Amino acid sequence: MKKTDATWCLHVEGFRPGEVELNGNRFMLGNGYMGVRGTLEEHGKVQRAGCLLNGVYDQVPGKWREPVNAPHGLFTTLEGAGQIVAHEQTLDLRRGRMARRTRYENVSVSSERFVSLDDVHLMCMRYHAAPKPGAGVRVRTGIDTELWEINGPHFKSLERDRREGVESVVGVTGELGIVVAVCAAVEPLDAHGFAKYVAVYTSLDGVDPLPAARAKCLEAKASGYDALGRAHDACWDAVWRRCDVEIEGDDEAQFALRYSLYQLQLAAPRHSDRVSIPARGLSGQVYKGAVFWDTELFMLPVFTLTDPRVARNLIMYRCHTLEGARAKAAEYGYRGAFFAWESQERGNDACTHFNVTDVFTGRPIRTYFRDKQIHISADIVYAIGAYYEQTGDFSVLIDGAAEVVAECARFFYSYAYYKKDKQRYELLDVTGPDEYHERVHNNAFTNRMVKAALDIACVILDRLEREAPDAHAALDRKIGFRAELDAWREMAQRLYVPPPDADGIIPQCDGYRALEDVSLEELKGRMLNPTEYLGGGNGLATTTQILKQADVVLMLHLFFSDYPQETIRKNWEYYEPRCEHGSSLSACAYALVAARLGDTDWAYRYFMQTATVDLTGASTQYIGDLYIGGTHPAANGGAWMSVVFGFAGLRTGTEGLTVTPRLPAHWQRVRFRIEYRGTPYRIDIDSDAAVVIEAKRKKKSGQPV
Amino acid sequence: MKKTDATWCLHVEGFRPGEVELNGNRFMLGNGYMGVRGTLEEHGKVQRAGCLLNGVYDQVPGKWREPVNAPHGLFTTLEGAGQIVAHEQTLDLRRGRMARRTRYENVSVSSERFVSLDDVHLMCMRYHAAPKPGAGVRVRTGIDTELWEINGPHFKSLERDRREGVESVVGVTGELGIVVAVCAAVEPLDAHGFAKYVAVYTSLDGVDPLPAARAKCLEAKASGYDALGRAHDACWDAVWRRCDVEIEGDDEAQFALRYSLYQLQLAAPRHSDRVSIPARGLSGQVYKGAVFWDTELFMLPVFTLTDPRVARNLIMYRCHTLEGARAKAAEYGYRGAFFAWESQERGNDACTHFNVTDVFTGRPIRTYFRDKQIHISADIVYAIGAYYEQTGDFSVLIDGAAEVVAECARFFYSYAYYKKDKQRYELLDVTGPDEYHERVHNNAFTNRMVKAALDIACVILDRLEREAPDAHAALDRKIGFRAELDAWREMAQRLYVPPPDADGIIPQCDGYRALEDVSLEELKGRMLNPTEYLGGGNGLATTTQILKQADVVLMLHLFFSDYPQETIRKNWEYYEPRCEHGSSLSACAYALVAARLGDTDWAYRYFMQTATVDLTGASTQYIGDLYIGGTHPAANGGAWMSVVFGFAGLRTGTEGLTVTPRLPAHWQRVRFRIEYRGTPYRIDIDSDAAVVIEAKRKKKSGQPV
Repeated sequence: MKKTDATWCLHVEGFRPGEVELNGNRFMLGNGYMGVRGTLEEHGKVQRAGCLLNGVYDQVPGKWREPVNAPHGLFTTLEGAGQIVAHEQTLDLRRGRMARRTRYENVSVSSERFVSLDDVHLMCMRYHAAPKPGAGVRVRTGIDTELWEINGPHFKSLERDRREGVESVVGVTGELGIVVAVCAAVEPLDAHGFAKYVAVYTSLDGVDPLPAARAKCLEAKASGYDALGRAHDACWDAVWRRCDVEIEGDDEAQFALRYSLYQLQLAAPRHSDRVSIPARGLSGQVYKGAVFWDTELFMLPVFTLTDPRVARNLIMYRCHTLEGARAKAAEYGYRGAFFAWESQERGNDACTHFNVTDVFTGRPIRTYFRDKQIHISADIVYAIGAYYEQTGDFSVLIDGAAEVVAECARFFYSYAYYKKDKQRYELLDVTGPDEYHERVHNNAFTNRMVKAALDIACVILDRLEREAPDAHAALDRKIGFRAELDAWREMAQRLYVPPPDADGIIPQCDGYRALEDVSLEELKGRMLNPTEYLGGGNGLATTTQILKQADVVLMLHLFFSDYPQETIRKNWEYYEPRCEHGSSLSACAYALVAARLGDTDWAYRYFMQTATVDLTGASTQYIGDLYIGGTHPAANGGAWMSVVFGFAGLRTGTEGLTVTPRLPAHWQRVRFRIEYRGTPYRIDIDSDAAVVIEAKRKKKSGQPV
Repeated sequence: MKKTDATWCLHVEGFRPGEVELNGNRFMLGNGYMGVRGTLEEHGKVQRAGCLLNGVYDQVPGKWREPVNAPHGLFTTLEGAGQIVAHEQTLDLRRGRMARRTRYENVSVSSERFVSLDDVHLMCMRYHAAPKPGAGVRVRTGIDTELWEINGPHFKSLERDRREGVESVVGVTGELGIVVAVCAAVEPLDAHGFAKYVAVYTSLDGVDPLPAARAKCLEAKASGYDALGRAHDACWDAVWRRCDVEIEGDDEAQFALRYSLYQLQLAAPRHSDRVSIPARGLSGQVYKGAVFWDTELFMLPVFTLTDPRVARNLIMYRCHTLEGARAKAAEYGYRGAFFAWESQERGNDACTHFNVTDVFTGRPIRTYFRDKQIHISADIVYAIGAYYEQTGDFSVLIDGAAEVVAECARFFYSYAYYKKDKQRYELLDVTGPDEYHERVHNNAFTNRMVKAALDIACVILDRLEREAPDAHAALDRKIGFRAELDAWREMAQRLYVPPPDADGIIPQCDGYRALEDVSLEELKGRMLNPTEYLGGGNGLATTTQILKQADVVLMLHLFFSDYPQETIRKNWEYYEPRCEHGSSLSACAYALVAARLGDTDWAYRYFMQTATVDLTGASTQYIGDLYIGGTHPAANGGAWMSVVFGFAGLRTGTEGLTVTPRLPAHWQRVRFRIEYRGTPYRIDIDSDAAVVIEAKRKKKSGQPV
């Protein structure tokens, strides 16, 4: 194991049983199709080993519906190994490879593995075990069918076979009968070593899974580990060429940001526009493997500006799940599209009405995530608007996005109420990002997002009419939106967005500032149980101004130019001490706004908190008795945004690309690449905030705007 | 103690310590100015003795604001009496007198007392103690200053004095410095007996309390017990001539109904239009001695049709508290008048935002009685409309009621939202009578009541314009309502009132029927603590269809003619098994509707439940750790309504007076008197449902309509 560049490698020495779960997250591999947890080869379900299949869901009756862990093809046991004497584990971000070297009492083990980015069905491993002579150590490699499952078991049958030197396990899920085939071929290398090639296919891939997986194994074995690794590395190299951000003068930040990008990229679907990125990436079944607003507001911006093809896949996932969003709107008595709060493969909402357990009574608590967090539909429209604006990809509108924005506008119109004596529309009974305050009226974030969504929908539909009149007419024939456009325009104009009050504070919702103004410290002192839920009907935060996560501040990030800086500063300072940051989505919003206000110290603190969340494991692990650990791709995206939109001050808009840098004092240089409306740009900022923006090969130099 | 008529007397034999509190309620005396609990003379605060002053409130910092108990002037101790050997206690409803006879080991005690209905400041007692010779029994009578107080102590000073043979205690309350003077004069009758005259005045009475009370005592002593008793009896006689309902063939029902009327009458203010009737009458400080909607919907109908002067006082109480209602509306950001949920002397709302304690955590629960039970303002307008319609008293409109109805209409307009795509107004985020379901949308009861309130307001203001144009113009100058009338009219027309669904069920609120449909029995089986609150954020009933009390069924009573009987029956049958009757207001609504549907068995069951609530003590005594015992004047009024509106089927309206009787099978005859638009009528119904309606002296015979 070579000593590696500290800004590209995560390296851990020593084996601490208490960190096995954390390391499972920290040493993740993945390719958007599947995610393989960074547990050791000899680990099984007790250590939360897992090979999560993106978009393959199953429900055991009476339990939560969640994604399926495939039988684990890298599983390799050591009999008679004794205790661990020494251990080190390394993740090479640049090449997406994990290596481990462990000295047991009776055997030394080393391995390297990758989950191929070149071929999403494939993972490969090189394994070496040097037993102490005569110690009677026995190494066995196979496919583990004892799976870590939160709401399992998901396979009603699991059949094992071996043919043509390929071991196979075929599982069939209970709910939908999805076939999952895992095949493994072993190639001996020397007396103590072997290479292993594992292929995974499911019946959702449009092929017969078992033959496909078997053929893939044999093909891989024929190609060999080195050749497959080179193809894999080349793919990662391409990824990094697009997304890497170089920070000079701060190796810690450099590494944390690269690590964040790595975690985000390994969950990104390049192979399909039918899946997205779940809230815990592919690190496990937490949050039902569901896709939240996290994707649109915290991850998509990275892809939209660095790898639009991935962004397009993520948007198309929403287009493909529109039917589920229509059904959900209808379920609650509305028209249009109300996207799932916890979206699974068909847009069905995995979120329940009772999503948290009361630690005092053991009873489920009625929560309003599912039915009141209407901003999800606006977040999707906002993301579509940004994607379209920043990529110029008109085709996505015709392929489904125009229909999505129209149906979301329709939903909001049907949700809104008009206050006649104030001549304005209002959005009542909603839950904003701060989920501790459920069922509030006129949540500032929600109202502003919905206003933006209506504006975007009107712009997009107008553009469609001008530039693709046939598609526009076809869409109108399909969903008949034309007669409603004027109403949406009127609503966008007259939708109430809570203005700053006499103190300059934008109330998070109606009545917010009349709530008890208690310090976070005092509130926590009132807790009777360390995992009691602070929101919900009787939650401690519910009746106070303590918020779970950035809400108004997130709005200020998104609509920075709507307000004078003085107002933004006042609100940041007001909400900051009242925010628990109980969500990993929170810190980056504070970092982003602080950076733009020039408060680089605060911005840096929140940026680092965001960028290191999956390294430190310092995130909320339980709500009540609900496990919510895993990786945090939204924070990963937030780390990139904090640097690119925050410190570098990148903006896109009617004036094109602008950069207004405010780097932390100890940063000497920041360089990154974006792709804007089809043109790649390199941005290079030095410590004097001199900016070079380089488009393609034609160099142009610019000053910050 | 004479054997007395079982339909006029409550008689209890034997002394059971566990029933002292219940008997304190059962043997209440009162005159609307004060209520004296039916504890024995030797009882004090431990036994919850009390002399509650109507409308005299005080607040100890940090505690709930509640009415004041005066020092107890009938207090008479027995030293060396020994144990109780025999005991009997009698309440003579017809004359409002309580008598007791108790044989202690060493002394026999008898007494009779009344709280004068002829002079509200006066109570009188005749007391006799025959000690066993040589037993050393010592009888002392005085004024007890050790008071039963729930949120006391309320007197910052208590000064005792004796002059001219009159003992006095003058207390000064802590919050407002109200002076309460209690004076007592004793008149020896024979060796073992005395009469006692107690006078109570406060500085709110517009006189100097101590001299007034002292003079009253001396004057009473001069008049003597018999003469004062005769004047008192004559007043009760007049009360009964107005309100008595004679039931032949059912002495139990006859007694229960009279008892209900007695309890209601003793709390009714005849002396003042600045107080009303609190939810627990004058039986104690429970519910902060506050006036709820109970008065308008459950008590006022009795007075409006039997003693309009009392009804007028009750309505004027609301007129005098309009300023508090305006302040409350403004507090929540609305215009107009939002009456207090728990109204005290100036219309200030005694209800807190945290009115119940969580038994599991000991923390206060955020409840929405105060801020969401908007129907209170509609209930008041409804009552004003009914009062005006049934009495023809135009003067009340000029004296304040027209302003009240206008300000309430204005409030509702400012509260309502317009749903453009459905072209209707809706009332969102309200709590209806079923307080287990807080913050609901379009509560059927609330919406229908508000519609009625808007209609009534428009009718009353139109009438005012026609018949008293100067008063109309003056009111418009004062509150400027003219420009808003058309909007109120439009809202009345377009206000959504939830219609029956496909099953014929009127949903109690939006989404009601999607709630869990659990049986009451099963729900109660889920309780972990016998007094846990079923509503609120995490209450067991909150997420189910179990309702606390009549809600849709109460609406059906009030708006019976809006619906076909088939619909009413379906809804009664649907809601009846789902109703907990956790409020004493509930049973009478079920009785009323069942009676009108001809289900006299059901009606009789619920009528008797209503009419006996203060006899059996079978009502909820605790919510969480909150004591809510006492008398139930709303149920008392409900008992009268059940017979008069229910079994007798009395209606008033555009067709004048109609009677459609459906008597219980075993009832032979029902006779009662009402006063309608200034004309007294006697209604006489026999078991064949033949009706005689006799106006004044002119006899006219009618058949049911």
